[in-house]
Amino acid sequence: MKVKLDGIEKHFRTVWMKGSTVCMIDQRLLPHRFKLLKCRNYLDTIEAIKNMTVRGAGAIGATAGYAMAQAALESANLRKPLKYLFMAADKIKASRPTAQNLFYAVDRVCNAINNEETLESAVKAAVLEANAIANDDAEACRKIGEFGNTLLGVKDSVLTHCNAGWLAFVDNGSALSPVYAAKAAGKQIIVYSDETRPRLQGANLTSWELLNEGIEHYVIPDNAAGAFMRDGRIGLVIVGADRIANNGDTANKIGTYEKAICARAAGIPFYVAAPTSTFDVNCRSGRDIPIEYRSEDEVHWIYGMTEKGKRGRVKVTPEGSKALNPAFDVTPAEYISGFITEKGIIFNENKGFDFEKLWK
Amino acid sequence: MKVKLDGIEKHFRTVWMKGSTVCMIDQRLLPHRFKLLKCRNYLDTIEAIKNMTVRGAGAIGATAGYAMAQAALESANLRKPLKYLFMAADKIKASRPTAQNLFYAVDRVCNAINNEETLESAVKAAVLEANAIANDDAEACRKIGEFGNTLLGVKDSVLTHCNAGWLAFVDNGSALSPVYAAKAAGKQIIVYSDETRPRLQGANLTSWELLNEGIEHYVIPDNAAGAFMRDGRIGLVIVGADRIANNGDTANKIGTYEKAICARAAGIPFYVAAPTSTFDVNCRSGRDIPIEYRSEDEVHWIYGMTEKGKRGRVKVTPEGSKALNPAFDVTPAEYISGFITEKGIIFNENKGFDFEKLWK
Repeated sequence: MKVKLDGIEKHFRTVWMKGSTVCMIDQRLLPHRFKLLKCRNYLDTIEAIKNMTVRGAGAIGATAGYAMAQAALESANLRKPLKYLFMAADKIKASRPTAQNLFYAVDRVCNAINNEETLESAVKAAVLEANAIANDDAEACRKIGEFGNTLLGVKDSVLTHCNAGWLAFVDNGSALSPVYAAKAAGKQIIVYSDETRPRLQGANLTSWELLNEGIEHYVIPDNAAGAFMRDGRIGLVIVGADRIANNGDTANKIGTYEKAICARAAGIPFYVAAPTSTFDVNCRSGRDIPIEYRSEDEVHWIYGMTEKGKRGRVKVTPEGSKALNPAFDVTPAEYISGFITEKGIIFNENKGFDFEKLWK
Repeated sequence: MKVKLDGIEKHFRTVWMKGSTVCMIDQRLLPHRFKLLKCRNYLDTIEAIKNMTVRGAGAIGATAGYAMAQAALESANLRKPLKYLFMAADKIKASRPTAQNLFYAVDRVCNAINNEETLESAVKAAVLEANAIANDDAEACRKIGEFGNTLLGVKDSVLTHCNAGWLAFVDNGSALSPVYAAKAAGKQIIVYSDETRPRLQGANLTSWELLNEGIEHYVIPDNAAGAFMRDGRIGLVIVGADRIANNGDTANKIGTYEKAICARAAGIPFYVAAPTSTFDVNCRSGRDIPIEYRSEDEVHWIYGMTEKGKRGRVKVTPEGSKALNPAFDVTPAEYISGFITEKGIIFNENKGFDFEKLWK
């Protein structure tokens, strides 16, 4: 997608591979600084996943695939290449233990390797497969945009929560992809971006994406979304998903559930946009999704750009007060109007969701 | 209420008068620094209202009454004392044009002055009346606590939004007063305090009050409140109010409406605690309450304590993105379980609220 650098528009993916180097946008520095990180070996790439240089399900998956391809390239000169590859796969999988796409990507590259007969062809296959994973992600997101665009009017306004834009994937994004498709189709879309405390992905990332794509948008405090839905400012809500259970219950960034409830109260549709890789067929319902709690420091301290233009943080709570920081919540299926996937939109029919067609 | 300074517990009101000096806690510096501001004349006191050294309906009202008393004291040595007093009343009323308590307090002191026959007795009456306003506010809040305490179990947990504690009044507070009364009665109460973006009154002020009062509490991102209500963590919600319409529709800090909707969805009670002075009998419903928009900089920039222990701010949005910052929202009466006032609790009976008994 587009990034404006010194007034010049360039095209970027979130992560890509050039030779044996994995390149990515350093998302920790956005929106105040645009910088690429180059990882020369698979251990550097793992570090980038761990320290959140790259985040978002699709982007993490692609990065993990590239890390595995790097490990394959590195193994070519070693005496025990297979041992090296096994170790690499384990290490990559351990870098962010709850990210489903990470396991999927590593296994996919490993399978490609296993299907080859010589080390040389295996290395080539690994790189090809890693690129295929990234391309598949970008293409799935592009299709999500195409399907999602059909839900948007010629003039429409969308509320979104957190960042499920192209920065969370390889390209296009999930929740924002319909907006980009609509813009390309000449529609006038306004996006309201919840700032999304505590980590402020809406204020930091969604706004930055929309700014670069030239889409009219407003960052709003999370608290304002309900009132804006009620007063008719917002046409529909589109959010991403971390994990979708078999009955449609959806885990996503903390606060998503509140937005779903407010959408219902205001009588506006609430859509979840996600590639089919986000559907966890082994998960029966939201009750089976454990809620991860992150460090309370994310509530106490807020990061941003200081008055001097440097990255810094301020503390907003008194010494001695405790905080609670659940990473996501579960929105019950009944509040969801439909799922926008690369295979089409699955609407909420009164009996619930019929996901069978996704797997045909 | 209590403030712990260097380990020693002291009693403070939010604002008080000593001789001709108005003293107040500088709320702009909380929770990181406790400092008193002393206003030697009424113009200094007006400035403190304007620059938000003091905030909250009750506290602003009392401060305005004291400012008027100061003006009376100052007028005693002038050649045209009445002209001075008229001018002062106008200036005080203009300091925060939307604060209803401010008008009420100034008028009340002016009436006390007008009832006297000599300048000397008028000045005395002004000071007495200003103190009476402050005492009435503290006493009303104390009674709100007494009534509100009846709603709390021996072990209970309360969610609150923004700060409607004693810092928003002269003493005791509205939404937090029931918690303080419950604690005094030996109950075990846990408070979940929404941080309340954009101005973070929950993170800055409510947490600081609760810490000083020794009440177990957790600061949470505004986004987490819905999930916590749903998972059974929270027994009831108590919030304050900026203005209550005749049908019970209630204007309060932005985000209050979302909490009310989530409480309904979770099946837990949602109470508004406010002295009767907050009820606006001239306002028919929430539709008659205009929503004030504040500077978008409150969304872009977040204030707190820097790593070096100084007050500072960080920017969380990219240059070029716009923000929207509605100061409050309106919660429809139907979502409110009851109003806790100094004259008792008015419960939601299915036909709506019967406020008549408040005015008998």
